[in-house]
This record gives sequence, structure tokens and C-alpha cells, in this order.
Amino acid sequence: MGKEKKRVESITPRDEDFGRWYTDVVIQAALVDYSSVKGCLILRPNGWGIWERIQHVLDGMLKATSHQNVAMPMFIPESLLEREKDHVEGFAPEVAWVTHGGDEELEERLCVRPTSETLFCEHYAKIVQSYRDLPILYNQWVSVVRWEKSTRPFLRTREFYWQEGHTVHATEEDAMEETLRMLDVYTDFCENYLAMPVIRGQKTDKEKFAGAQKTYTIEAQMHDGKALQSGTSHYFGDGFARAFGIQYSDKNNELQFAHQTSWGVSTRLIGAIIMVHGDDSGLVLPPKIAPTQIALIPIAFHKEGVLDKAMEVKAQLEKDFTVLMDDSDKMPGWKFAQYEMEGIPLRLELGPRDIESGSCMAVRRDTGEKVSLKLENLNAQVQELLDAIQQNLYDRALALRNERIYEVHDYESFVETVENKPGFILAPWCDDQACEDKIKEDTGATSRCIPFDKTLEEGAKCVCCGKEAKHMVYWGKAY
Amino acid sequence: MGKEKKRVESITPRDEDFGRWYTDVVIQAALVDYSSVKGCLILRPNGWGIWERIQHVLDGMLKATSHQNVAMPMFIPESLLEREKDHVEGFAPEVAWVTHGGDEELEERLCVRPTSETLFCEHYAKIVQSYRDLPILYNQWVSVVRWEKSTRPFLRTREFYWQEGHTVHATEEDAMEETLRMLDVYTDFCENYLAMPVIRGQKTDKEKFAGAQKTYTIEAQMHDGKALQSGTSHYFGDGFARAFGIQYSDKNNELQFAHQTSWGVSTRLIGAIIMVHGDDSGLVLPPKIAPTQIALIPIAFHKEGVLDKAMEVKAQLEKDFTVLMDDSDKMPGWKFAQYEMEGIPLRLELGPRDIESGSCMAVRRDTGEKVSLKLENLNAQVQELLDAIQQNLYDRALALRNERIYEVHDYESFVETVENKPGFILAPWCDDQACEDKIKEDTGATSRCIPFDKTLEEGAKCVCCGKEAKHMVYWGKAY
Repeated sequence: MGKEKKRVESITPRDEDFGRWYTDVVIQAALVDYSSVKGCLILRPNGWGIWERIQHVLDGMLKATSHQNVAMPMFIPESLLEREKDHVEGFAPEVAWVTHGGDEELEERLCVRPTSETLFCEHYAKIVQSYRDLPILYNQWVSVVRWEKSTRPFLRTREFYWQEGHTVHATEEDAMEETLRMLDVYTDFCENYLAMPVIRGQKTDKEKFAGAQKTYTIEAQMHDGKALQSGTSHYFGDGFARAFGIQYSDKNNELQFAHQTSWGVSTRLIGAIIMVHGDDSGLVLPPKIAPTQIALIPIAFHKEGVLDKAMEVKAQLEKDFTVLMDDSDKMPGWKFAQYEMEGIPLRLELGPRDIESGSCMAVRRDTGEKVSLKLENLNAQVQELLDAIQQNLYDRALALRNERIYEVHDYESFVETVENKPGFILAPWCDDQACEDKIKEDTGATSRCIPFDKTLEEGAKCVCCGKEAKHMVYWGKAY
Repeated sequence: MGKEKKRVESITPRDEDFGRWYTDVVIQAALVDYSSVKGCLILRPNGWGIWERIQHVLDGMLKATSHQNVAMPMFIPESLLEREKDHVEGFAPEVAWVTHGGDEELEERLCVRPTSETLFCEHYAKIVQSYRDLPILYNQWVSVVRWEKSTRPFLRTREFYWQEGHTVHATEEDAMEETLRMLDVYTDFCENYLAMPVIRGQKTDKEKFAGAQKTYTIEAQMHDGKALQSGTSHYFGDGFARAFGIQYSDKNNELQFAHQTSWGVSTRLIGAIIMVHGDDSGLVLPPKIAPTQIALIPIAFHKEGVLDKAMEVKAQLEKDFTVLMDDSDKMPGWKFAQYEMEGIPLRLELGPRDIESGSCMAVRRDTGEKVSLKLENLNAQVQELLDAIQQNLYDRALALRNERIYEVHDYESFVETVENKPGFILAPWCDDQACEDKIKEDTGATSRCIPFDKTLEEGAKCVCCGKEAKHMVYWGKAY
């Protein structure tokens, strides 16, 4: 047992080295294993289980907003990728190329999709004819490939999983409404399921998606103060429609170009969950997204009646929750540490004395707090605890993030803040990319977004060049 | 409307040209669209919806039998693919090769997975240590790529979707039990959800999976009499374990090689559903797998109260069923034909006179039969009808298949039967591959399986060479 115990305890403390802590959690919580292809991960049951929960919940939200799932091929012919100029420039340098099928060289090489705008557009050009066909609201859940130089589990991998929504609308107004609706859906999902507060806003031109007219984003703050772009929603205008010939006859029987959107979230969200909620004992999962919500540990279960009672309690709990009961012959201490490492929100311990007194001991993963629960009407008490954990995780993350937003108006303070205070900086900007570039070069911080909810004070000056500011911007180092 | 009506009616009659009928259904039921890469299909909402239902139901069955989902990378390095000799020989000629990442040539080329045994095995070699770690029961839902020369929607495509289960066991006995358990799961799924009777048996050595010791199969008969291999389950023995070094310490602390299985079903099943149940009006979906179970068509819905009542009926039905209500301004006749084409099991028509009499008209997709239903207690009546449709589809397919199984004992009859009677042939075989080869060359029929439930009569002779027979075998032309 000694060896097993040690394994659980061997992660780097979070505040000592956040990067190593992160990698330790990812491995020790058995979320991933490395494959022999750099940057291509194996998602183990604990890791894939989180993604399955994300898919389940978010897919329900997408269907509730009238979206339909489809599946596009994984290959894009080079000539198709090249159809929209900005798009190909953004993606071509980092795609994987298939050149041979069996022994034969292909007539045209194919890239493995880095994103599927071009495939959707080619299809839309065929199926869109009349205004009656619109809107078309499609989504797919797939993996995509980007040949990144440096990689990190969940945050930057060569293959990653995501959903990509691609929609077609008659008018700019309809398309903009969809673009912002999906940002709302992502916000709702991140805040209410992942317990992760986000800042909503628009990306600067420098940071927007290759081929988009406007990109909107939700930005979350990790425990180390860095930003993680957690979801984006793009308004394309009719740029892709013109490149691909997506036209419809309007009510007056005149041909019009369609307006489009795309939007996506990916397995990066798993990285965000780890870095927002995790602690020195490992992963901490919000109850609403945890694949396993309760670890039920029978204590001294060789004693008569314990295992039977545990089975009974498990069956009762499974009416409302996902439960893992561990009656293996490992030591309870090992089990406690292991399921803490895996981030299971609630542990229930059930031993002979608990059974005698008609109770069990609940231990919260978020606070470590122990609460004795009555076995009678157990599920309602458990639900209350899980709700409290979910709320506490959100409140804690929100408080920490709000503590670490620094508004600055002069460049010296800006540079000094980036250097010494992890977090976000809110500062006015002149809209000139030269200032963004300078800030990045001087400090490593990038513009995260132009937030929806901050207006510029009259007469505000750009924090970098001192000229008239046009927008307030959140800045920060980012993953 | 004329144009729309015509579109629906334009499919080739099934008995005139089964191949063209199939392609027509696939396109007109809006299951797929072609992409610009040959053999790589776009699965449209109607097609992907069926696969989602298959995934949902079968995934539940896999979880109920203790399997866990994971995700392996899509790329396999060439050297890894080559690790098991038979396996690489079977797959290398038909894989797609990635040679470049961005502008750089890769040090080692990567194939896009044609199947993932090698990836699972490499992972298992790392995570399997003790007999306590076993069994490991993993599955994944992904797409795989095989660079086929000739392709056909769902039946043979270069990219297709499937689940692949890969399990590790301590003993041959455990692994064999798993291999057959999964064949049972597939049988249950095909017969009870897809309403498709299957014949269960073992593949001959010639037809088994590359690298397997034994391959088991379920074989279904399509409407044209041809066979479709609908699911396979493989017993690997310790062949892969030896090639990849998958060893565990047993209870005596001695190192043993593990025993493995793999098993899968794919989007071919959608092809099977089409070819088993479809008719001259298009697709016919079994209610238990139909993404939309009911098409609700309000009639004369500009009249007061019709649309309100239809909404009310829809809300009532949606408590138990998936419902599409079409209140577009298209003609009812067009809607009837379109939703028949799409295979929706039940149509409900609701007009002013129906409402007056507190009823609605139900039309069965399988038989065309019309039944008047009371609006009171509607869901129970609908459930009864859907159950009847599900049962009828199965019974009809079973009866037709059983009519078309021909037992023959001499070669002349064999050849004559293959030529003139679509269906399966049951005939004794000597276990010599030379006879299989000759039969294929002479007739185009292949061995489908050595069935579990047919024993050899004493003294039976091989239908081909006349030597002593070892097994009864089902033969047939196959997709």
C-alpha cells in the first residue's frame, strides 16, 4: 500500500510550480496518457468521461436552440481550403497533409480538417436555394488537427475534440443575433455547469478568426492569473458566401448572398476546469459536470452487514446521482486520496458505527468539510451538498478573479502590473494594432477582449501610446 | 408544388434496380450528400440522426456491460502499425498516409487509423501490471479511414463511423467469454432495435480479421438476398500481447501474457436498415431507432383552432415520443410523400373534422394502413402502434430471410442456386480454403459463417470437393 499511497501524494504543490502541478494532475487523475505521436493524447476514461458530460449537457442546449448535428468528412482538398483567402492564410501553415492512399500518391493532397468552414460552405452552396431554406443551423462534434510546435495536454494539442457550429442566415441581422446567442449559450454553460465565471467581449482585429468579420469570446481566469480563451463565436458576414457561391432567392425572387456564423468550444474546457478549480490534492470537478459525483467507500466492510448496507445506499443514490463504490481491498486512506485526486465532488464513508446510528459521513471535495448525513432521506441531503459545492466553486473562482482585475491608465503601471500581479488588466486602447504589438513584445500580455460591459470614460487615452482611446480592453497573459 | 412533388416520386422501383433504388433512397431521404473527396460522405441531419440513436442505445448497452469509453489519437506511426505482422499485412495497403505537418516533412509518416488495435495495445502495455488491473474493458466511438477503390454510401466508404471495443483479460477463458458476450450484445441490438434478424457464427480462417485467432460475426440478409456482415467480435489470444509486451503479474507473482478481444459495428448498419426495411416509397425506420418517430401534419390549419389543437397534441406526444410537426405552407400530399421517403414510422393527420370528433388519423409507414385514434389517451394508442410496427418489420424480414435459405449438398445445385435464387445457401464444407476460393471464383459467393446452431449430419461431404465435411457453412453473395 505504501507505494500506492506515495503515488497519490506525489504531485507538485500548485503554488510552487503551476505548470508542473497541472501536468501532474492531468496524469495522476488518469485523465490522459501520452501516445507515441507528439501532441496527440489518449483520453482515458476519467478524461473522456468529462468530455462526454460536456457533450451531453451542451448538446442538449444546442438542440434546445434548434441546432441539428451533422458530420462532415475529416479531409479537405487543398484547392477547397484555398477558396477563402484569409482563411487559408490562417490555417495552411499548421495543417497535416495526406499525400498517399495505400501505395498510390493522391492526385491532390488533402489536409486533415483544422476546422470545417470550407466543407460546410461547399455543402451549403448545394443545399441553399430559397429564403425558405434558411436559417440552417448545423453543428458537429469531431476532432480536428493543427500541427502545433509546442503542445500541452488539453490546452494545445495537435489533435483535439470540439464542437463546431456553422449556420447560414438570410440577413446580417439574423446572423449577428445567432452569433451573440451562441456566446450566451457558452456563457450559461461555463458559468452554470463548469462553475467558471467568464468575461464576454469582442476580439480585436488582430485576434479574430481567420476569415471572420467579428469574433466574440468568453475569457476565463485560471488560478495562476492567466487567461484562457474558452469559447468563440464568429460572424462571417457574406465573405464565405461570396467565396463559395452560397446564394438564395429572396421573397422577390432576387438572388442574395447568405450571411454566416461559426462557433466552437473544445477540450480546452477540461484544461480550464483543472486550472480554475484544482488544488494541491488534485482535480476538483463541479458536481454538474463530474462523470462520477459520489465516491462511496464502505469502511471495515468485512464486518457483517456493511457491504449489504453499502449496496443498498448505492442503489438509493443511483436514482439521482452517478456513484462509484469502491469495495476493493485497498486501504481506505488510499481510496480517499485517489478519489480526491480524481476530483469526485463528494465522498461518502459508511462503516459499522455509521450504520448503527443510521448515518454516513460526507466529505466535500471543495472544502474538505465533513458532514454527518442521516441515511433516511439521504438523496435530498446529498443534492443540497452538491448544490452547495457547485455554488461555492463558482463563488470562489469569481471572487478570486475579481480581486485580480487591475484597471490602469499609464504604461508604466501597465508593465509593472503584468510583471508583478497575475491577473487581468483593464486599460483603454486606441484601436491601433501597433500598440497591441508593442504591449505583447514588452510584456507578453495580449488583448483578451473588448468587453460588453465596460464603457470608456470621456477623454480616456490609450494606455500604450497616449492617443485618444476608442475602447476599454482586457489584457493578460494567456494560454 | 409540382416540382417538389415530382422530386419525391422520382426514385427507382426497388425490384427494377436495387442498386439505383438504394442510392436514390440515400439521397432523397436526405441521409447523405457527397463531398468533393471520393468516398467521404457528408452525413446530413437525417443520416447522422440515425447514427446518434444507434450510439445512444448501443452505448447504453456497452455501459451496462461495464465498458468505459476512451479516445485514442487518429494517427498511428508507421512503425507502430507494423508491430503485429498479420495486422499490418491486412491494413497497410489501404491506409491514408500523412507525410507533412504544415510545410515540414515528418520524420516518420503517420497513417490515419484504419482500426486502433495498435494504439490500444501500446497503451495497455503501459497500464497493465497486475491481475488486479484486469479486465480492462474499453470502447471508443470514432471515424476510421480505409482507402477503398470502389465506394458506396454507408456500405463501403473511405471514412466511416464506428465503435471499436478493445479489451484485455487475464485468461483465454475470460477473453472468449467477452468475445461471445459482445456478439450477444450485437445480436440483441440488431434484432430488438433495428428489427433485423441475424445469423450468428464464426468466420472461416480466410475471412477472419487480420491478427485475430477467431472472428465471430452476425450476418443479415438484405432485401435483394445478399448478405451484409453487420458486426464482428474477435478473439486475439495473446498474439497482440506478445507483439506489444502486454504482461501482468498473476496471483503467484509470475508474469503472464494477457488475452485480448476487439469488436465493432459501424455506419454500415444504416445501409442494412435501408436495405432490409426500405420500399418503393423510400426509407422505413424501425420506431426504436428512428430519430423522429411521428410526423404530425395539421390539415387545413388556417381554420380556427386547428393549429392550437395540433400544438397541444404535439406537446402531449412529446412526453413519450420524438415528433416533427410540419405546419409549413407546402401541400399535405408533398409532406406525406416526403416523410414517407424519410422513413418516419407513423404519420398523424389532424384536421377540423378530426378535431370535431376528438380523433386523428394515424398512417403506418410499414403497411400504409390507416387507423383512426381517439385523442383521449392518445399516447398509449400510439405506443401500441409503434410496437406493432417494430414487430411487423422484424417478422417480415425474418420470414423473407427464412424463405430464402437453401440447403444444398451437391456442387451443381450450389452453382445453380447462387445463380438463380437470391439468398443464403447452407452447405457442408471440408475446411479447406481451396474450396472457398473455388466457390468464390465460380459463383461470386463467399463463406458468411459457420453457424452456431447447425450441426453437420453424419457422413456429410463438402459441397465443393466431395471430401469429408467438417462444418456446415452459410454462403452467399455479400456487400
